[in-house]
This record gives sequence, structure tokens and C-alpha cells, in this order.
Amino acid sequence: MDKESLLKVLGLGHLVGKNPSLDVHSPIDGALLAKVTLTTSQETQEAIHRALEAFEIWRAVPAPKRGMLMRLFADELRHHKEALGTLVTLENGKILQEGLGEVQEMIDIADFVVGLSRQLYGLTIASERPAHKMLETWHPLGPIGVISPFNFPVAVWCWNFALAIVCGDPVIWKPSEKTPLTALAVVTLFKRALSKFSEAPPSLLEIVIGGKDCTLKLLESPHLPLISATGSTNMGRTIAPIVAQRFGRLILELGGNNGMILTPSADLSLALKAILFSAIGTAGQRCTSLRRLIIHESLLDTFLPKLQKHYQSIKIGDPLKDTTLVGPLIDEHAFEKMQQALQAAQQQGGTVFGGERVLEEEYPRAYYVKPAIVRMPTQTDIVKTETFAPILYVISYKNFADALEMHNDVPQGLSSCIFTNDLREAELFLSSQGSDCGIANVNIGPSGAEIGGAFGGDKESGGGREAGSDCWKTYMRRATNTINFSSSLPLAQGIKFGENN
Amino acid sequence: MDKESLLKVLGLGHLVGKNPSLDVHSPIDGALLAKVTLTTSQETQEAIHRALEAFEIWRAVPAPKRGMLMRLFADELRHHKEALGTLVTLENGKILQEGLGEVQEMIDIADFVVGLSRQLYGLTIASERPAHKMLETWHPLGPIGVISPFNFPVAVWCWNFALAIVCGDPVIWKPSEKTPLTALAVVTLFKRALSKFSEAPPSLLEIVIGGKDCTLKLLESPHLPLISATGSTNMGRTIAPIVAQRFGRLILELGGNNGMILTPSADLSLALKAILFSAIGTAGQRCTSLRRLIIHESLLDTFLPKLQKHYQSIKIGDPLKDTTLVGPLIDEHAFEKMQQALQAAQQQGGTVFGGERVLEEEYPRAYYVKPAIVRMPTQTDIVKTETFAPILYVISYKNFADALEMHNDVPQGLSSCIFTNDLREAELFLSSQGSDCGIANVNIGPSGAEIGGAFGGDKESGGGREAGSDCWKTYMRRATNTINFSSSLPLAQGIKFGENN
Amino acid sequence: MDKESLLKVLGLGHLVGKNPSLDVHSPIDGALLAKVTLTTSQETQEAIHRALEAFEIWRAVPAPKRGMLMRLFADELRHHKEALGTLVTLENGKILQEGLGEVQEMIDIADFVVGLSRQLYGLTIASERPAHKMLETWHPLGPIGVISPFNFPVAVWCWNFALAIVCGDPVIWKPSEKTPLTALAVVTLFKRALSKFSEAPPSLLEIVIGGKDCTLKLLESPHLPLISATGSTNMGRTIAPIVAQRFGRLILELGGNNGMILTPSADLSLALKAILFSAIGTAGQRCTSLRRLIIHESLLDTFLPKLQKHYQSIKIGDPLKDTTLVGPLIDEHAFEKMQQALQAAQQQGGTVFGGERVLEEEYPRAYYVKPAIVRMPTQTDIVKTETFAPILYVISYKNFADALEMHNDVPQGLSSCIFTNDLREAELFLSSQGSDCGIANVNIGPSGAEIGGAFGGDKESGGGREAGSDCWKTYMRRATNTINFSSSLPLAQGIKFGENN
Amino acid sequence: MDKESLLKVLGLGHLVGKNPSLDVHSPIDGALLAKVTLTTSQETQEAIHRALEAFEIWRAVPAPKRGMLMRLFADELRHHKEALGTLVTLENGKILQEGLGEVQEMIDIADFVVGLSRQLYGLTIASERPAHKMLETWHPLGPIGVISPFNFPVAVWCWNFALAIVCGDPVIWKPSEKTPLTALAVVTLFKRALSKFSEAPPSLLEIVIGGKDCTLKLLESPHLPLISATGSTNMGRTIAPIVAQRFGRLILELGGNNGMILTPSADLSLALKAILFSAIGTAGQRCTSLRRLIIHESLLDTFLPKLQKHYQSIKIGDPLKDTTLVGPLIDEHAFEKMQQALQAAQQQGGTVFGGERVLEEEYPRAYYVKPAIVRMPTQTDIVKTETFAPILYVISYKNFADALEMHNDVPQGLSSCIFTNDLREAELFLSSQGSDCGIANVNIGPSGAEIGGAFGGDKESGGGREAGSDCWKTYMRRATNTINFSSSLPLAQGIKFGENN
Repeated sequence: MDKESLLKVLGLGHLVGKNPSLDVHSPIDGALLAKVTLTTSQETQEAIHRALEAFEIWRAVPAPKRGMLMRLFADELRHHKEALGTLVTLENGKILQEGLGEVQEMIDIADFVVGLSRQLYGLTIASERPAHKMLETWHPLGPIGVISPFNFPVAVWCWNFALAIVCGDPVIWKPSEKTPLTALAVVTLFKRALSKFSEAPPSLLEIVIGGKDCTLKLLESPHLPLISATGSTNMGRTIAPIVAQRFGRLILELGGNNGMILTPSADLSLALKAILFSAIGTAGQRCTSLRRLIIHESLLDTFLPKLQKHYQSIKIGDPLKDTTLVGPLIDEHAFEKMQQALQAAQQQGGTVFGGERVLEEEYPRAYYVKPAIVRMPTQTDIVKTETFAPILYVISYKNFADALEMHNDVPQGLSSCIFTNDLREAELFLSSQGSDCGIANVNIGPSGAEIGGAFGGDKESGGGREAGSDCWKTYMRRATNTINFSSSLPLAQGIKFGENN
Repeated sequence: MDKESLLKVLGLGHLVGKNPSLDVHSPIDGALLAKVTLTTSQETQEAIHRALEAFEIWRAVPAPKRGMLMRLFADELRHHKEALGTLVTLENGKILQEGLGEVQEMIDIADFVVGLSRQLYGLTIASERPAHKMLETWHPLGPIGVISPFNFPVAVWCWNFALAIVCGDPVIWKPSEKTPLTALAVVTLFKRALSKFSEAPPSLLEIVIGGKDCTLKLLESPHLPLISATGSTNMGRTIAPIVAQRFGRLILELGGNNGMILTPSADLSLALKAILFSAIGTAGQRCTSLRRLIIHESLLDTFLPKLQKHYQSIKIGDPLKDTTLVGPLIDEHAFEKMQQALQAAQQQGGTVFGGERVLEEEYPRAYYVKPAIVRMPTQTDIVKTETFAPILYVISYKNFADALEMHNDVPQGLSSCIFTNDLREAELFLSSQGSDCGIANVNIGPSGAEIGGAFGGDKESGGGREAGSDCWKTYMRRATNTINFSSSLPLAQGIKFGENN
Repeated sequence: MDKESLLKVLGLGHLVGKNPSLDVHSPIDGALLAKVTLTTSQETQEAIHRALEAFEIWRAVPAPKRGMLMRLFADELRHHKEALGTLVTLENGKILQEGLGEVQEMIDIADFVVGLSRQLYGLTIASERPAHKMLETWHPLGPIGVISPFNFPVAVWCWNFALAIVCGDPVIWKPSEKTPLTALAVVTLFKRALSKFSEAPPSLLEIVIGGKDCTLKLLESPHLPLISATGSTNMGRTIAPIVAQRFGRLILELGGNNGMILTPSADLSLALKAILFSAIGTAGQRCTSLRRLIIHESLLDTFLPKLQKHYQSIKIGDPLKDTTLVGPLIDEHAFEKMQQALQAAQQQGGTVFGGERVLEEEYPRAYYVKPAIVRMPTQTDIVKTETFAPILYVISYKNFADALEMHNDVPQGLSSCIFTNDLREAELFLSSQGSDCGIANVNIGPSGAEIGGAFGGDKESGGGREAGSDCWKTYMRRATNTINFSSSLPLAQGIKFGENN
Repeated sequence: MDKESLLKVLGLGHLVGKNPSLDVHSPIDGALLAKVTLTTSQETQEAIHRALEAFEIWRAVPAPKRGMLMRLFADELRHHKEALGTLVTLENGKILQEGLGEVQEMIDIADFVVGLSRQLYGLTIASERPAHKMLETWHPLGPIGVISPFNFPVAVWCWNFALAIVCGDPVIWKPSEKTPLTALAVVTLFKRALSKFSEAPPSLLEIVIGGKDCTLKLLESPHLPLISATGSTNMGRTIAPIVAQRFGRLILELGGNNGMILTPSADLSLALKAILFSAIGTAGQRCTSLRRLIIHESLLDTFLPKLQKHYQSIKIGDPLKDTTLVGPLIDEHAFEKMQQALQAAQQQGGTVFGGERVLEEEYPRAYYVKPAIVRMPTQTDIVKTETFAPILYVISYKNFADALEMHNDVPQGLSSCIFTNDLREAELFLSSQGSDCGIANVNIGPSGAEIGGAFGGDKESGGGREAGSDCWKTYMRRATNTINFSSSLPLAQGIKFGENN
């Protein structure tokens, strides 16, 4: 499908609005994909108000009906999986398999919440007072602001959106300025689903495309009780206090500095595959990308050369091609950051393998790089810093306890894994004294979570959790109810108040 | 028991430490109760480090064993209920029944967490990949900073402490500077429990008594992943951004402006009792005190005079006396705030009944007031403001929808109730379109929650939840684990990565 | 759609197999619908073995994939809702709206289990031993025998089937001999879904059509760890010991004798609608049909005549016609049972209104009756007996406590309701001292449950629960796991065993 | 403590009642411990009726208060742990450490249910209809019949009792006729707790001591909605149909034939300890005793001799002595059964090591045996049969898949374990394709469960589950409630009924 047809299929034929002011380039070749109109601060405000009005209607629609809308949306996504996945690749540069995987993740979560919409379980709770009934119920919260990143332009948003919709909350979406097209395409698909569903207000989903002004409007609005933002730790540090000050809730999905402990008993061929997928996939631009390989010293001499050999043979290039495994970096800035990191690593004692720009001639306005492996003597400052690029730091360990300590000795806490066939090592890694990350896997890389679990991490990774498990609770408000159906008024804790007067 | 014996029983015989710099006065008569040493900023830092060391040990103690420590503590509290309840009354001024109720609440939560310590349930979750196992486990979080208020000097702390201890987290406690004695007594009782329990580190509970410096140390410490603070909305607004900026978690229990909707079908004698307990109990100084009575216009002429009559006959005075229902305000500042609010109410159209100082002659350094009823024409600004004193604003309504709207039209969202025997009104009040408070009761006042439910509210009430239900989760860190025990590496979402290479 | 086209659409074009031995008649006009081949005892045995083999494969397919099969099946049902609903009406005689409703219920549960398939949550549990991990996991159970009734020929089966399939269990279905066609149609639709799903074994669903021999084979088979049977209490009493003796699990959904308490504060127009739907819907042949109206004496004189008037004007006849509300009884036997019950009622002091056969001329081989209202002086034996026909016994009460006692004084315990606007009455009815039924509703009739809750009742209603909530657990086996990853072997309960030897 | 003092401490001073007809002998030396009065059939009936009356009162006592009674009982047990544990040893013959462990288990579950009493969580569930509220609540069930075995004379009963009491259900206890004294002692201790608790009816706990008549009365009584019985598979097979026929619920805890798979990577010293505790502890008379060792062929030559050596050196004798590890069998019958099994094993190709009677001279009326190890060529019939005695069958395996298959190829399904340090083996053993037992452990023997998990197994082990997790649900009845608080009557599944009439 050529670009024009693709955009048409996704309902983006007339994309260029009034006053198009944002140029969207493909990282694949730097070509202009489209011009998009930026949302003004005033329009953002209006969008918030429309969402607020939508909330008044939507919260009264029974949750299982809200789920039906998500089923319709899932069907739209299933139907346009190929097109939407391709657009993800075009706009973001990840390889098509990953673009499709992202859409599949949207479908998965949308299917999941259809079932969830008949649950949203609260509790009935035993009351200490006779003829009293105690309950905990969950109610819709209000319009949600979702700020999504370029690297997962649609899946991360959809984790939030799917939960929000069945929980009764409209969504205002601010996609990354680097990937507005996929966002606009998704909005179109959702509107199609919406048109088949009579009970929903049109403003269930509002999109705003813009910069700091726009973002600030969302952060500061008293009408958005929850802001869910995915991005860098720096971004999180800036926005968290703004929302906290107005007692807004926050779901922050920030940086990761994800490690793998590779132990002597590991299945090395599995480990190798996992490293490749998680260290070079999405060109190292996943929040869950593998960035640190903590390898047992006994494996170093055999495994590292093997890994380097595989790095050598990886196909870099056009991400739409079947054989490509590494596409471009998102932009020049990313490329520069990567080079700076590699320099710093060298200065801090590292030996760099790979990392240089390639295909410059073919794509002068795009930034393709060889994924880098950097052998480090110790876990220096640069290793503790997240660089959003395909750099894998390799550090060796002697004792398992040291490996664990090194693993946790970074400010981030998103994802982690161990490759081992040793039960005790595996369980220790998963225990309260093991990995301090929100995601800790055994014999799976740090990337590629299923939607059934909670996604997110602690420390500088922000503390938010999204997708499965009971993450939906963050999108609702909790009410504790006690109903007295007796004819007296006993007090809790057996207090007597004025009863002998 | 006289004061000296009381302090002795509670282990506070040698209270006056080196450099005692904080005078603790009883609000009952303004008399000096004791002199307490303030914790320096440096000592606070040291306490944090001791707690951190304690965490390393405590998190490895199995949770059911941690529960056993809480059982021992519960026994200490049971044994000293009378003495500790009396000290609460002496230091805080609430009547003895409420002082005892507060200790009972400590006992209840301590008993509750013994059972909880064998649960702390995570999930096993169906994985989409063959021979994969997915789990969600909960691990100890780290040392917790608990900032507690004067009005519930021990119960609110204990909600946090009991959960923290079984969750594997040491606690650093900063009690209100107005009520350090009860805090010190409780620490002593806990140490007694601790002395019977061999596996616990001594620094499971650290206490710091001090002002802003001390607080700031806690808020800013990267070693305290959770700060649980109870106090005013202003306090919350100040501290939230500080903790948010370092990605710390927050449990905020802030102001309430709690309403009762009194409907024509209500059991008025129950309602009357509930109003008295919740509007004048603890001299209106509970976060859940009833502050707004939204009464159906048809009831106004009969019910209001009756209520005023009861207000007239309420016994005000020494809270240690059996017949007293209203003790003193905490201090002069509280008294002044109350008078200002009553003036403002008058200026905004209200008619004030009661509210004046009494017993001035008998207690010149204490502040006893007549609880006030203020008939307001509409819900003006002062009604929307929380004043921590026994002022009950009375507003009438015509239609139930108006009552609901008025009820929610305040910035706070802590507690609420309706008195009705009409099923539809009751259920609407409890529904997603009803009360927007964290606590919503039927035929029970807004005060006096059982510990089995989650306690807390949204909006300017801060969003925190404490005590029962799944509130323990905030005191732990969540880990999502996937274990691959197959011999291949399937990716989630069916992604194929380099498999045809 | 004529019958031929209908059967064709549903894949039943070549229905008449070898040795057709079961004539299927429509209760609408007694006409022969089709001839169906009975399954022999030997074929049943073979079906069980095929199911057992299917189990070996299916249990290893990840649950979320199993869910995808159910999504495909839901789509088939959605696509053929009209046709399948019509066939339900043709074969069972319920009106088309209810036939469609039944198919909708299939769709609802199928959609629900798609989400469920990513949950099937077990627990991680705090262990009392250091470096030990405790879990509870749920595994596929084995092939399930489902014995379904004529009155809900497809929905009740689907509750079981949908759960079984995502839980990893193949199903052997023995539909009622009165309604094999809908069963065969559904099997065909499922096979279509199956054909789009590569990982499923063909014998996930086996159907056996037959009588006692066939049933006995299922009941006695050691290979079917769970038998789910819906039918009469007598049936349950016969089969329960057979399955119990071999330690098989049972889900029994047996008779109901469902009551409504109609109180003075009730919304009478709602109550009237609810009575009509639940007492005459499906011609009184639902297990949840309303059979007893316990009405406050003050309402008797006005409400009963009104009800009788509505009964008079109800359209009885061809259930495929839009205006019809009451179709035929299933067969002559049902008609005779009804007449016997009415006679008994009269003998026991009742006054019968309606109940006579109608449309005999038009449909000589079908059994249409006027729904009956029987005013009873007390709750006599016949009132305590379930008669599967549209008979509504009316008994009056004076005090609410009497109404409750009368309500519970029947051997069955399936469904129940109260119509009241009095909060205390409603809550008392729902309390531990209220209705003893598995389903207890307020201001809703006893019929027409949503699939999100657990369906079933206790006492002679059999104790089974199906559909939502945690009913899926009955379809799985529970394993409690403890993993020791330490290097020592501490015993639970602190037992020391031979450690000082 | 001598026997007399012991009985006195436990309130059994005046044990010999009217018509004492049951002689209770100690298995230690065959001496008469006491004479006990048997309950007549008529008295059993009366006990049931008292329990029924108690239920009417107890179900209305709020669950958290019911929990307080259990706290008092836990304190009694804690206080008399030594005495009660000693009596267990005296009457049952297990070593004192295990007698104490049993009491500790009672204490653990009693402590646990105190917390549970504030939970008993039902669900609030999203309803598909507007202004409808759906809930699932759990209510007290009724009096429970508990039939307990001689081998855990008090702990197993207490699992049931503790849950029943907080769930609101009185208990009628029929202890084994071999161990009525411990039962009577426990009843006395409970009565002491009861005397400190004003709100409880005296008949919360009834004890009946007797044989088949007595048991039959319980099984057949329509007033006991749940029978929880622990004993042999034969016993289960007899009683299950009786209870099933009257639609009573059953918790059956029957035989086990528990295996350990010992793999090459196992920590053999841990495995050895685990085998000793679980194969010879309680003289092999636990339902969870290890009976089958499935050992990798490579370990056989080294491990088996070592195991035999340990068997040789085990101290057999007076279970009250500190150094004893194996006490007597319960009686002559048990001894004979053991000898028959050993003979059968020999006939089926086994080589028997140990198993002979010892200490016959010292204790002519008691039955002490050497624990037996039987090396079997294959898993023959006798290996598949549970013999309640210390016989350990040893079978070797070559491939792990064979080990698993052999493991599951017995009719029982209670407990199981694997000793391995291989992650894949461990996880496979725990997976849906692994052990088919209710309990499956890694690096822990099959005996000695913590009370936080569910205890029980499937297949001929009976299917019951007791103790932790959500086992309490079996002791309650589930009610699904839907409350309509709207002014219309929408039907589920979108059915329209007579709305255009």
C-alpha cells in the first residue's frame, strides 16, 4: 500500500487542516509525511470542557455497555491492523513486525476490557455493627489526560484509553508531536466504532496536538482528576509537582535502565535471542529496552564474541522490509545523544563495539546506527543513565549477590530479567530481596509484556502501573459505604456517646 | 489515675530528656503536661538511616511472623487501653469515650493485620504463551514516613503503622507537635512488644518530634518511598509537590467538609443522634466532622428548633468527666479561626446560633465553646471552607437533585451521608451520580469509620486511602513476573523477530 | 425465514442422519421438525474418550488463546442471532424476544470469558517460612459433562461451555431430548469457529443425544471430573449420589419456587410489569419463574383485580408473532401436571383464576393455556411444590417478618425478590436474615439474571453456581504450591524434627 | 506433668460421665486413659437442634464480633499449648513436637480468622442496566457437622471450626472414637473463651462421641447444610452419596498417596530431611505422609543406602521423649494392615527393608514398628493403595516425563513434591501438565502445610479444601443481588417484553 492509500484507508485523506503548522517527517527517510494543525491553548480548554460534558453522560451508561463500544473498536482495529501497523512503522520507524505487534496489543487490551466491563469488582465487607452493610464501590472518575510517547505511539495510549472508557472516563489525548498521524488515524477508527454505538457522547475521545502550552493546560486543569503520562524521567520530574499540587492523580511511566543477569546455568541460545530482541528492537528506543547485561565472568569469553557476531550480521535499514531488524532512530537529536553516551562510556573505561551511523548516503536525512555493545569495567555513571538508543552495556560479575546488587544500583526501576536454569537464583531474583523493578522476568527479556499483567516500575521509572491486573482502579474513584438498616445507631469501636444523658 | 501515675504506667516516667524544648500543654486547662525534646535535623537523618537498616532485616522476615509482632502489640494496647485513652484525652481534649475509642481502633487494626499477614495476596495470571507462568507479587517497599495530626494522635498513625509493619516496612513517625506525649507512650508500648520478639530490628519504629526542618527532611529523603501525611489541605498542597518531584508515593488525608442530606422519610431520631455525635464530637475537630446539614425544607421548622434545643443542653467541660460531650478546642488559634468563620458566615447571610466561648473563668487558658449552628440561605464561600471547629451550617433544599448538587459543590471530598428510608434516594446517593466523597453512608453520620473499609477521600481531601480493603498495597511494591519454563522464546502479541533469518 | 432455510443457515440441512430415531416436534403446533439420530451407549463412551484426548491438547494451549476461540464463537453467534433465536422459539415454544434473549446471553458470556481468559487469577500468598514462596494456581480440570434442559436449550449450556473452554476443559453435551435441534445448530456454529482456529482439537465439543443409558454413562465415567446438570429436583436427587460416589464434582441447577414480596411502599406499576414477565414469560417454564406472590394485605383488593385484568388481556398464541407474550407449554405432560396442580390447589382452599387450555381447535396437538392466578389462604403443600407451568400463587401477609418467614418456608432456594421502596425492608430482605435464595433482587423480578453474577441457588435448588463471579473455579482444579528456595528446611508451625540428633 | 494433672488443667477432671462406655487407650502403652460416655442417637438429634437454635442467634452477630470470640479461644490455646500438645501425644501417639505443632496450627488458624472476620468479602459487580446495582454477598450457612480423624485429632477440626465460627455457623463435632479426650479438652477450652463473651449462644459447639448411628444422624440431617469429613477414601465413598442425596454440601479430606520426585539436581541433604519428616513422622499416619519416592536412577545407588542408614538410626519409642522421632501405630489393626501391605509388596516384586514390630516386650499392648522402605520394580497395585503406616515405596525413573506420569498414576491426588534445582523441572511439575495433586511443593516434603493456603486434594482424595485462601466460602451461602433503583424495569439481555402492547 502506498502512503496515500494508507492514509485514506485510515481516514486521514483530508488530514491537512486549517493552518497546518506541524511538519511530520518519517524517520525512515526524513521525508515529509504530512502537515498537521496544532491545537491552541484555547482549543485545549474547549476540549477539556467537551470531555467534562461527555463524562456527565458516559458515567451513567452501564459499564457492560461501555464495554460493547470497546468491542466495536477492537473490531475496527482488527480490520485495519495491517494499515495501522504500517503507519506506525512509517511514522515511528520501528520494524513492521513491531508496528503490527503494537496494534495487536491495542486489540488485546480492547478485548480484555470487554470482559472487565462486567466486573469492576468492589467489595462487600463484614461490618462490626448489627444490621449494617459495608461496601466498597468503584465509580467513574472523570476525564483523563493521556500524554503518550513517540516510541509506542498507539499501544501505550490504548492501555489507558481502554481502561478509561470502560471505567466511564472520557479521554483527552496528547500524542507525541513526533507521531501525531498514528494518533489521528486511531481517532478516526474510534469514531467509526462510535458511530455504531448510539449511547455514547461524541467527545469521549478528544485529541490535542501541541507543545508545552497545551500540555500545561492539561496538567493544571482541575477538571482532569488523572493525568497518565509516558516519557522521560525528566519530563516526569517536571510535571509531577504541577499535578500533585492540585491533588490530581498521576500515572507516570518514565525511564528504564533495564538489566539482564546472565548466569552460568542459563540456556544461552534463548538468552541470545532475548538480548537481540530487547537490546536492538525498536532501535533501543523502548522504555523496556535491554541496556545492561550483567554476565557471569565465566561466560564472558565465549558469549560476548558470539553476541558481537550476531550484532554484526543484523540487517539495518528500511523497517518496512521483512528482513530488517533495526530501523532508524527517531531523529538527529536521538543520534547525538547516543554518540555522547558512547563517548562518555569510553571516557569511563568502556570499550565500544558498533554504534556508528550507517546508510547515511542512502538516507541523508535519517539516522541509522549500528547497535552498540559497550564492555564496561564497572557500572559507571553513564551506565546508570538511560540513553534512548541501542547501547548495551556489558558488565561481568563473580558472585550472584554482587550481580543482584549491581542490578538494583541504578535510579530506574522499570524492567529486568534473569536467564538461569537454577531454581534458587530465579526465585531469589523474584523475591523481596531480588530485582527492585516493577517487571522481573525469568528466561524472558525485559521487553514485550503481556497486557494481562500490570505494566510499570518504581523509583525514577515513576511508580505508575497500566494495563491488566487491578490497574483499572486508578481510573475510578473508590467509595466506602456503610448502610445502617437497623433502628439504632451503634458507633464503631464501641464508643458510647451521650447515651446515658 | 493521676497524671504522674498515668505517665508512669505508659513508660513516660523519665520523659524530660536532654534539652527539653517543647512545652506540651493540656487543652483541658492549659496546664503544662510535660517538656519534650525536639529532634534535630541531623537526628532525623540518622533515624532515617536506622530505619533503612531495619528495612534490610525486616523485609526478609516472613510476613506471618511480622504479624505475630503486631499481635503482641495489640495485647499491649489492650492491656493499657484505659491509660492510653486517658492520655489521649489529657493531651488532645476529646472526651474519654472517644479517647478510648481511638485506642480500640488501634487494637482493631492491629488484630486485623495479624490475619492480613498471611495473605498479602498477589495474583497468578493466565499467560498467553505456552509453558509460561505469570504472577504479580507484592514486596516490602521501604521505610515509611508517617506525619500524624493532633486530632487523632494515635489511631491514624496506627492505621499506617499496622499495615506498614506487616508489609515489611519500618516507620518513622512525626506526630503533631501538639500531641507528642501519646506518641511517646505508644512508642514505649511498642518497644515492650518488640522486646518479646526476637527477630525484629530495634529501629522498626523511629519517632521524630519537630517542626518544618524535621518534616522537610522526611519529605525530601530518597530513602522514604512513601510519605503518609494527615493534616490540612494547605499542608497537603505544600508537601505534595516536594514528594512528587522525587517520585515518592503519597498518602494524603486532608480536609473534609462533610455533609448530611436529611430527607423527609428519614428516621429523625437517628438523624439527631448522628448529628450530635458527628457535629460536636471531638469539638468539631475531626476530619470527618459533620459541617453541613442539607435539610429538606419541609423538615426545617420542626427539626431545627429541636436540634438547637439539644445543642443547648449538651454538657461542655472537662472531657474526663463521664457526662461531658464537648471538651475544649485544641488551642487559642483554633478558637480564633472559629470566631472568624462565624463572622464571615454572618456577613454572608447566615444566622448564628451558639458558638461563643464558655467556662472562661474556670479555664482561662483553655478554649471551650458552645457548638454553633448557622442557618445559611445558600452555600456561600465560608460554607465551602473547612473550619476545624464545631460549626454546623444548615442549608435547606427542595428537590433531591438540588440537594445532591449542593452536596458535591465543595472542594473537599472526604465523608458524607444521607438519612432516608427511601430506597431510591439512598441508592442514588451511593451511585456514580451521587456523593463524590470517599465515604458515603446511609443512616450513619460521616464520622466513625470501621477499620475494615478504606478510609479517605478525593478532591482536596487528598486522594489517600488507609486502613482496610486493599489499602495495604500502597505500602508494598508490585512486581509483575513472567517465567518462561519452555525451551523456546515466543514473544507477546505474536511478534516474530528475526526468526526467518 | 421458513423452517427449511432456517435449518440450512444453521448448518442443519442434512440433519436426518443414519437411523433417525428421535422425532422432534415443535410445541407450537405439534408438527414434526426433524428426525434425529440417538447416540448409543457405545458412542457415548467413544465421545468421552475423544474428549479426554482433546483435553490433553487443550489444557496446554494458553488460556488467552483459548479465549480467542470463544471470541470467534461469539462472532458466529452474533451473526446468526436471528436464526438461532428463531430456532429456539420453534423448538421450545418461548416467544421470539426470549429466544433472541437466550442467544444474547450466549453472546454475553462468550464475550465475558474472552477477558476472563487473561485472568483465571490464582493467588500468591505470604509464607511463614523465610525464602519460601506460596501460591495458589488453577489448572484445567478435564472433560466436563453438561446436561441441559429444554427450557433454556442453549443459554444454560453456554454458561458452562464458555467457562469450560477458557478453563481448558472439553465439553460433552447432552441436551434435552425435547430440544436437540438448537443443540445441533449450536454445535455447527461452534465448529465453524473452530475451523478458523488452528490450535484446537476437533473434539473440544462432543454432543450426545439420548436417554437414561447415555446419561448414566456420563454420570459414572471416571473421566468426567465435573458434571453440570440442569433440571428438576427429582433428577438431581437421582444423579447426585451417582456422581458423589465416584468423587466427581457436581453443578446442580434444579427447581425453583420463586417468590416476590410485594410491600405497601412498592412502585406497583413496576411490580406489575415484573410479575407479568416472570410469571407468564416462557409460559412459566423458567427455573426462575415467579410462582409465589406474597402480597401485603392492604394491597390485595386493588392490586389483585388489576393483575387479573392484565392476565385477561395477554396475547397467547404463536410465539413467533410480535404481539404474543405467552406461547405453548412444552408438551401434554406439562399440561397435565399443571391441571393436577390447579386441582390440588383448589382442594387446599385456593381460588383459581385462569389456567384452562385455549386455542385447542387451532392447535389440536399443541398445549396453550391461560396463565393461572391462584389465591391461596395459606402456603399449602401444593404451593411448596414446583409446577413447571404458569401458575402464580397469591398469599397475603400482615407483618413483614411473617412475609419473610413464609418466603423461606419452601424446600427450594433459587430466586426471589422484593418490591419495596423502604430501605429497611429491602436491606433486611438482602441480609443474612432475609431471603435464603441464591438470587435475591430488589425491584426486579426473579427471572432474567445478568451473566456477570453467579447464577444458582441452595437447598433443593441444588447448590450449583454458574456464569459470572468466580464460578469459573468449579471448572478448574486448585493447586496450592510452596516453593522452598532457601538452603534449609524449616517446618510449618515451627515444628522441630530430629534437629538435635 | 502427670496424666491426672494434665487432664485437670484441661478441664477434664471429672471426665467419666454417666454410663461410660468407651474405653480410651493410649497407643503409647495400651493403658486405659479414660472412660468416655457415648452419645446416643437421640442426644445427637438434640444436639443438632440446639445447634440450629444457636445458628439463629449467631448469624445475626456481626462477623468481626464473631472474630473476637476466636481471639479469646486463640488465647486459651496459647495458654494451654503445652498441656494440650501433650494430651495429643498421649492419646494419638505422635511425638510431642508434632503434638505441639498441631496446637500451633490451631492457634495459627484462630489468629488468621480474626482478620478474616472483617473481610468475608463479597463483590460489587458492574450491572448492564442503568441505575441498577449488582452485588454478591456471603451469608452464614447453618450448623456444620465436622467428622474428624484420629491422626490429627484437633488441628483438622480447628481448620473447620475457626472458619465456621467467623462465618456464623455453629459446629457439631464428631471426633474419632480413638481420640475423644483431646476433643473434650478442646471443647472445655472453647467454653472458657465462650464464658468471656456475652453475645454467643452456648451451643456454638456441640460434641457427639459415637459410632455409625451417630454419624448417620449427622449425614442425613436436613439441618446440617455442610458436612466436613476427614478420613479414608472408603469412608468418603460411603458417606458422600448420603449427603449428596439431600443436596448437602461436602468437604471431603480423604486418602493420599503422596509422592516425591527426586531429581539429579536436587539438594540431597534437604531431600533426606524432608523424606524422614514426611515418611516416618506421625509414624506414617498422616494423610500427607510421603508414601512414594520416585527417584532418578542415577541417584539410586548412593542415596538409597544413605536413606536406609538413617532409617536404621531413627529413635523409635515413647513419643513424649525428646529424642524419639517415631512413636507407636494407633492400634493393632493398623499394624496388621501394614504387615499385609508389606507382604503384598513382596509378592509384587518388592524388596522390603524394615517394617517389623519392635519394643514388643516393653509395650506388649502397643504397636511400635521400624519404618519400612520398599524398593519396587514398578508401581504395582499395592503402591497405588494407601496404607496408613510408615511404608515408603521407592521406584526409579529414567526420563522426567516418565516420573511425572508415574507420579500421577495413582487414584489419590492429595499432596506431592519435587526436589530439584532445575527451574524447568520445577515449573513443569507445578504446571497444568505437572502434578495432579491439590498440594504440589518444590523442595519441601508433602507434609506440613501452612494454614494460609487451601488444604486438600482431588480424585479419591475427595475434592475438599480447608484452611486458608477462599476456603471460607464453602461455609457460607452466596447470594447474588440486583437492586433496581430506577423508575423503569429494563430486562437483562435487552429483552423487550410486552412493551408495545
